[in-house]
Amino acid sequence: MSEHSSLPTPKAGAGVVELLRQFEADPAAAASYGEECLKRTRAIEPQLKAFEFLPRDVTAKRGPLGGVPVAIKDIIATSDMPTTNGSAIYRDHVPDADAWVVARLRDLGATIFGKTVSTEFAWRRPGPTVNPWNPAHTPGGSSSGSAAAVAAGLVPLALGTQTLGSVIRPAAFNGVVGFKPSFGAIPRTGVHPLSPSLDHVGFFARRVDDVALALSLLAGTSADDRHGQPLPAFTLDIAQGLAPLAKPRLAVVRFAKWQRVEAEQKAVFEAVIDKLRANGAMVDEIALTDLDAVHWDAITTIMLSEATTIFSDLIARYPDRVSDVMKTHVESGRTKTAMEYLTAKAAQAAQQKALDADLDGFDAVLTLPAFGEAPRGLAWTGDAEYCAPWTFVGAPAVALPAGFGKNGLPLGVQIAGPYRNDVRALRVAKWVEASLAFDPGLPPLARL
Amino acid sequence: MSEHSSLPTPKAGAGVVELLRQFEADPAAAASYGEECLKRTRAIEPQLKAFEFLPRDVTAKRGPLGGVPVAIKDIIATSDMPTTNGSAIYRDHVPDADAWVVARLRDLGATIFGKTVSTEFAWRRPGPTVNPWNPAHTPGGSSSGSAAAVAAGLVPLALGTQTLGSVIRPAAFNGVVGFKPSFGAIPRTGVHPLSPSLDHVGFFARRVDDVALALSLLAGTSADDRHGQPLPAFTLDIAQGLAPLAKPRLAVVRFAKWQRVEAEQKAVFEAVIDKLRANGAMVDEIALTDLDAVHWDAITTIMLSEATTIFSDLIARYPDRVSDVMKTHVESGRTKTAMEYLTAKAAQAAQQKALDADLDGFDAVLTLPAFGEAPRGLAWTGDAEYCAPWTFVGAPAVALPAGFGKNGLPLGVQIAGPYRNDVRALRVAKWVEASLAFDPGLPPLARL
Repeated sequence: MSEHSSLPTPKAGAGVVELLRQFEADPAAAASYGEECLKRTRAIEPQLKAFEFLPRDVTAKRGPLGGVPVAIKDIIATSDMPTTNGSAIYRDHVPDADAWVVARLRDLGATIFGKTVSTEFAWRRPGPTVNPWNPAHTPGGSSSGSAAAVAAGLVPLALGTQTLGSVIRPAAFNGVVGFKPSFGAIPRTGVHPLSPSLDHVGFFARRVDDVALALSLLAGTSADDRHGQPLPAFTLDIAQGLAPLAKPRLAVVRFAKWQRVEAEQKAVFEAVIDKLRANGAMVDEIALTDLDAVHWDAITTIMLSEATTIFSDLIARYPDRVSDVMKTHVESGRTKTAMEYLTAKAAQAAQQKALDADLDGFDAVLTLPAFGEAPRGLAWTGDAEYCAPWTFVGAPAVALPAGFGKNGLPLGVQIAGPYRNDVRALRVAKWVEASLAFDPGLPPLARL
Repeated sequence: MSEHSSLPTPKAGAGVVELLRQFEADPAAAASYGEECLKRTRAIEPQLKAFEFLPRDVTAKRGPLGGVPVAIKDIIATSDMPTTNGSAIYRDHVPDADAWVVARLRDLGATIFGKTVSTEFAWRRPGPTVNPWNPAHTPGGSSSGSAAAVAAGLVPLALGTQTLGSVIRPAAFNGVVGFKPSFGAIPRTGVHPLSPSLDHVGFFARRVDDVALALSLLAGTSADDRHGQPLPAFTLDIAQGLAPLAKPRLAVVRFAKWQRVEAEQKAVFEAVIDKLRANGAMVDEIALTDLDAVHWDAITTIMLSEATTIFSDLIARYPDRVSDVMKTHVESGRTKTAMEYLTAKAAQAAQQKALDADLDGFDAVLTLPAFGEAPRGLAWTGDAEYCAPWTFVGAPAVALPAGFGKNGLPLGVQIAGPYRNDVRALRVAKWVEASLAFDPGLPPLARL
């Protein structure tokens, strides 16, 4: 231990795997890192507004994630911190039990660092969080605080959820890595449901290695989540990191909506393709016409039907504590018929299967995470249309930072893969990350 | 082999396990048994009308079910025989592939003996099959032909399906053993769907050992059936048979509908309880009030919603080849909302879980399979209300013959257990079967 004070101190913006390597060499760094993060957060939080709740102090524990602060989206239950679900109804609510994924994090020695701002029940009404690259812009949502907190270097890892585009979109808008594993990979027990056929737990981090590590440690099953589909077990060697899948075969998917993509986002995408080709990737365009045609109507039908069923009683009991936008959505969900819902569910199963065949001969899809930069203003968290196809079929999806737009806000790309091929999608993303060698750095709001 | 001609020839009404023991001692009996059954069937079939299709000849194969004729409900696909689904639309339809369960039967050496009459798509419009105990009465449905064929001693085993009460009810009406395993135990790949959240493959046989053997050999999973929930593997020792669970703790469930039960059925039920108590069973009454209150509305909502989604296109394409009763049901299914459907699905999951707790301290439920004897006439296959609670929660359920009603038609009892406790339910049923020592014998129509 005599040398530990000469080792470098972990810095804001360090990744989880990078930190774990440092903590192994310097246990004192692990013991103090959480408090350093808390101090930084207290300085930046008044402007960023990423947290619903921060603990007074944090104590590092031992374990595979010992000393790693993890921020938790506030629709995920914590037994020792309030869980507001982004709703006034739950303002003072402290759950009786941790969510499955929080309990697992504690078992792994992670420091439960605080609760991050979510839109109301992870649906439409935004919270107060700003985009750390420009506080006049939305951070995206619904996992607004988790994305912004990682982007600002306050925590190296944060939990989010995605039902439509709530991990991939804010990750892209904040210039961080976002990962939504295959549907069913991580139990949602203790996560407030929005649409159980679509709700995924996902991660925000600064490196592909970090979200891969999170998947390796947090994938599992719970008897209380009937939608579980356990992934093949895999472990990540901290010393080695994830093995990149070099020179992958990439299927570029633009969808019909490509015409509405911002010019700078298009330019970044083409530059990415050129760079990956130059580094040896095989890149072909594919259309996925059927998925493109059916997914939006089907995913919104499933989501409205399920959310309406979940929230009707709550709205009836607390009409004054629910936003008008949520009431309007729930009303429209009441008009869905069982046949419309079941037809959409059948399309979901069919498209999930079809994607396997469509991606035969490819390692992954290369597409966009969003139409461009985070929109100006905080009233709208942005468009989820580029995220929705992969959420619909439960495919693994990774957002990677890839450039900046005309307002200086981040732009990204998205890697997706066939259902339950999470590790391959992550290995492709690792290679793309290395090929692009693009680090957006810390945003202005975080440069203390 | 010199002695085999002195061994007894298997008789009509022999059970599967009994036959397999004989076949082991006398392979020639295995080789000829299928043809003997076919000869008997040809003699009785003009009155019974249990089969949609019979092959010209049958050939015994080797395997765990070598030489055992198995009749297949005609909504289950066979690549070498027509599969009408009980519908004029499919009158000349021969599927490209066997259903999963038929392929498994062939692998086991079973003789695919023919296709049995189903109501139209296993729903309401009956086929021509009569009750072998009295041809003026329904055999029940929808697995009408399978139940009648086993009752008449034409085959020792038949496949059926149950979505509401289509195995347990006809088993009781025909005086045979019926078994509906836990939901998800047997893949429905290649079985025409009626309501995928409720459709179960089940069996008709003459002994509890036989349906237990069928479960041990036919349980499994298929990638094409997303509702699979594999049971713990178990094997049945042919020489030993299933070990009875002696002196079980039985929960008697009568439900509010008990007041509508026929007097003779009530008397048989009380006599069964007395006999089981006398033999050492612990018998207590329980109410299952919540299940009783919610199951019927919920199961019919699920079934109508899913069936309407499945059959709408078919009815639009072939309006003249679909019964009026089916059209009426599908029309009523169109009025179900997504929220009604999802509320019913949530109740299904909640009641399945609640039953585990309600049956804590018990080995199985003892209840009725039906209100009494098979109704007179062929227009209506009878009431499924005593079957529906167990189908709703996916619980294993066994029908056992227990007596006769005032018209000389069979009466039964039903053993049910918590979800996925199939072997325990069967072991209880084996003990009840032995305790009752009731063999209805062959029905008049089968006494050649």
